[in-house]
Order: sequence, then C-alpha cells, then structure tokens
Amino acid sequence: MAKENLKVLGFWCSPFYLRVLWALKIKGIEFEFIEEDIPNKSPLLLELNPVHKKVPVLVHNGKPIAESVIILQYIEDTWKNNPILPSDPHQKAMAHFWAKFADEKLVNSIFASFIRQGKEKEEAVAAVGEHLKFFEEELKSKKFFSGDDIGFLDLCLGWTVSFISVLDEINGLKMADEERFPLFSAWIENFSNSPIVKDTLPPRDRLLSKLRYMEEAFRIPPTA
Amino acid sequence: MAKENLKVLGFWCSPFYLRVLWALKIKGIEFEFIEEDIPNKSPLLLELNPVHKKVPVLVHNGKPIAESVIILQYIEDTWKNNPILPSDPHQKAMAHFWAKFADEKLVNSIFASFIRQGKEKEEAVAAVGEHLKFFEEELKSKKFFSGDDIGFLDLCLGWTVSFISVLDEINGLKMADEERFPLFSAWIENFSNSPIVKDTLPPRDRLLSKLRYMEEAFRIPPTA
Repeated sequence: MAKENLKVLGFWCSPFYLRVLWALKIKGIEFEFIEEDIPNKSPLLLELNPVHKKVPVLVHNGKPIAESVIILQYIEDTWKNNPILPSDPHQKAMAHFWAKFADEKLVNSIFASFIRQGKEKEEAVAAVGEHLKFFEEELKSKKFFSGDDIGFLDLCLGWTVSFISVLDEINGLKMADEERFPLFSAWIENFSNSPIVKDTLPPRDRLLSKLRYMEEAFRIPPTA
Repeated sequence: MAKENLKVLGFWCSPFYLRVLWALKIKGIEFEFIEEDIPNKSPLLLELNPVHKKVPVLVHNGKPIAESVIILQYIEDTWKNNPILPSDPHQKAMAHFWAKFADEKLVNSIFASFIRQGKEKEEAVAAVGEHLKFFEEELKSKKFFSGDDIGFLDLCLGWTVSFISVLDEINGLKMADEERFPLFSAWIENFSNSPIVKDTLPPRDRLLSKLRYMEEAFRIPPTA
C-alpha cells in the first residue's frame, strides 16, 4: 500500500465512513484512522468539519474534506489507479444519480422504517420496497452496480449489506426479501464476500446492540 | 455557438434549470429549450425523469440526465472549454461541498422562511442568516465564489439573486442585508450584471406574482 499523509475521522459502523474506507482499500492507499466517539464530538472533528460536525472527514496533506460522496470523488480525482467511476461522462453521471437517490431516498426510508411506529412504520417499509425496486432494476445482468467490479454506487450502497438484515431482526421484517429482490439479494452476497469488503464489515452482534440502543433512543411514537 | 443534439426540459424561473442554462452559455453550447408546465407534467418529462419527475432534464444525443448538480458536472466533463470547476481536486471538492450545503441548507431555510408563519418563520429567517454567513466568509477577497470568473458555486447560488429580493418584498424582510452581508450583496450585483446572466434572469414582476401565488398555495400555519 502507498504511504500518504492521510487521515480519516470515522466511526466503526457509519455507513458514510465505510464507503470511504472501501474506496481507499480499492486504491491501495494507507491512512491513519481516527475513531470518533459520536455522542462526544472531539475538538478535532469540530475544527475539521465546523459546518456539519459529522464523520467522515478525510484529511490529505493537512486539508480536510467532508461529505462522503465528495470524499469519494476526491479520492477518484487524486489517485487514478483502479477507477471507481466510469470515464464515460454519461455513465459517471448515472452512478452519481443513483448514489444521490440512495442517500436521499433510501437512507430516509430505511431510517424512518427503523424509528417510526404504527402506520408511519408501515409506510416507510413500503417506501423501502419502492426504492429497492429501482436498484433491483439497475442490477439486471450485472454482478455489481458498476459491472464486474465494485465501483462508486456499490460503495455508496455498501452499508445496506450489514444494516438491512440487522434492522429486519429488530423490526421482525424482511425488507430485502430474496424472492422479491433476487438480484439485490445476490448483490448483498457478492459485495459482502468480496476481498475488499469481507473483513471490514461491522461485527453483526455489535451492530445489533448499537442499533437496538439507537432504536430506543430515537423512536418516534405514532402520530395518530 | 456549437450545435449539438441537446435539449433541456426546464421552467422559466426554476433555480435548478437556471444553473444549467448558465453553464451551457458559459460553454457556448446551443440547445433546444423545452418549457415544462410544472403543475401539468408532460408525458415527455415523466418518460425522461421517471424517478423524480422534476426539471431540469438534459438530453444529450438521446440520453437523459436529471438532477441539476449532476447535469453541471456532466456538462463540465463533456465540454472541456471554459471550465466551471477547478482542476485541483481539493478546490473542486470545496466547490461541490458548498454547492451541496447551499442546496440542502440554504434552499430549505429560504423555502421555510417563505411558507412558514409565526415563530417558525422567524426561526427560518434566522437560519437563512446563519447560512449566508458561511457564503459571506467564502467571498473574502473574491469577486465570484470561483475567483475572477463565474464558476460552479456561483451557478448553484445564482437563483438567489432574483429570489431573495422578491421574497423580501413578499415577507417585508431584508434577508441579504447589505450592512450585514456586504460581500454577498456585492456578489449579487456582480452576478446579476455579468454578460452570461444579465439577460436571462426571470422578469421581476412575473417572479413576484408567481411567488405570491405559491406563498398562498403552500403556506403552512404556525404550529402553536
């Protein structure tokens, strides 16, 4: 691995940190991991990301960059080996389009399915299904969203391979049902078992206890 | 101007369409403008942007792209003349960072300042001020956010030069106060009067009557 003056402030199960970790592994770039204690934000985090005060933050040669999708694009622009985005502008735009959709729509529906109750929970679970349909469609005749190899959109959706099954256990649901979403289910297997990813996923028991704790802390009672 | 097989579905006062129009003017690219009637979405819009059903959509050689920031990056990747983004990866990341902040935070606070009432309106107006502070800071010793010439972040914030003063008139406010935000106020002047922009801004009277109509349609009464 190439040595760089590179630090990443992250959190072991942050969906947004994990994609940065995987992108740097694909590029073969070593970095210093600085673990943040999310409930007690460090002075370093507040200094490096004063606008959002969130992980991940990548610090390259002393210059900080926040927002995971912007960090991924920075990594791609800085280290040209093992590209994670297509060189064709339209294909690149499509990868960004679906990553934005995932971060705006799927993140919100999954979070709502987790913290809402009653009718709102049912609506959120239905929305997760509607959103996953688009990704099922995108996987037609492909192993990964990017084709034969893991790329940008795979990295952006990568957190779902750990989170959906743990949330299903907490909620007593099966959101990424194999019969309804055979291609997405196969993708979960392929992504989880890929050499870049397999030893980096959050330990299931630890994630389960973290998310159970969060579910109690953030739960929103039904509105009616 | 270069002739291309290029169409843009837009709406005369859409903040997100306007940035695409300006980017194509900077590149000197001709396109066919297809005006959408937003309350009555056309079958063409639903076909070209089935996910979000929103303008703008850029259609280049028959291939559609939605989401204005992704369209801007596509334009930059496709036509290399008159760059709107820096070639330095960190500076490029910063332009994207502030554009994302503008679209997520400033758009929301300005929209809330417009449709909310009472205490929520006051809070939204305060949030607009907090968000504009960041942009005031970004303009230190610069004419445009990108430096001497209009670039990516200028385009993304360009809608504010028409909208803020019209909303101020409707709300009886002065959100981009010249004393509080001298650099941002100067930027509004510089951007509005630049050759690329000056004949393209929505006519003030037409925008005023459109936004008055929207304010009545979307108004949310105070919650307490």
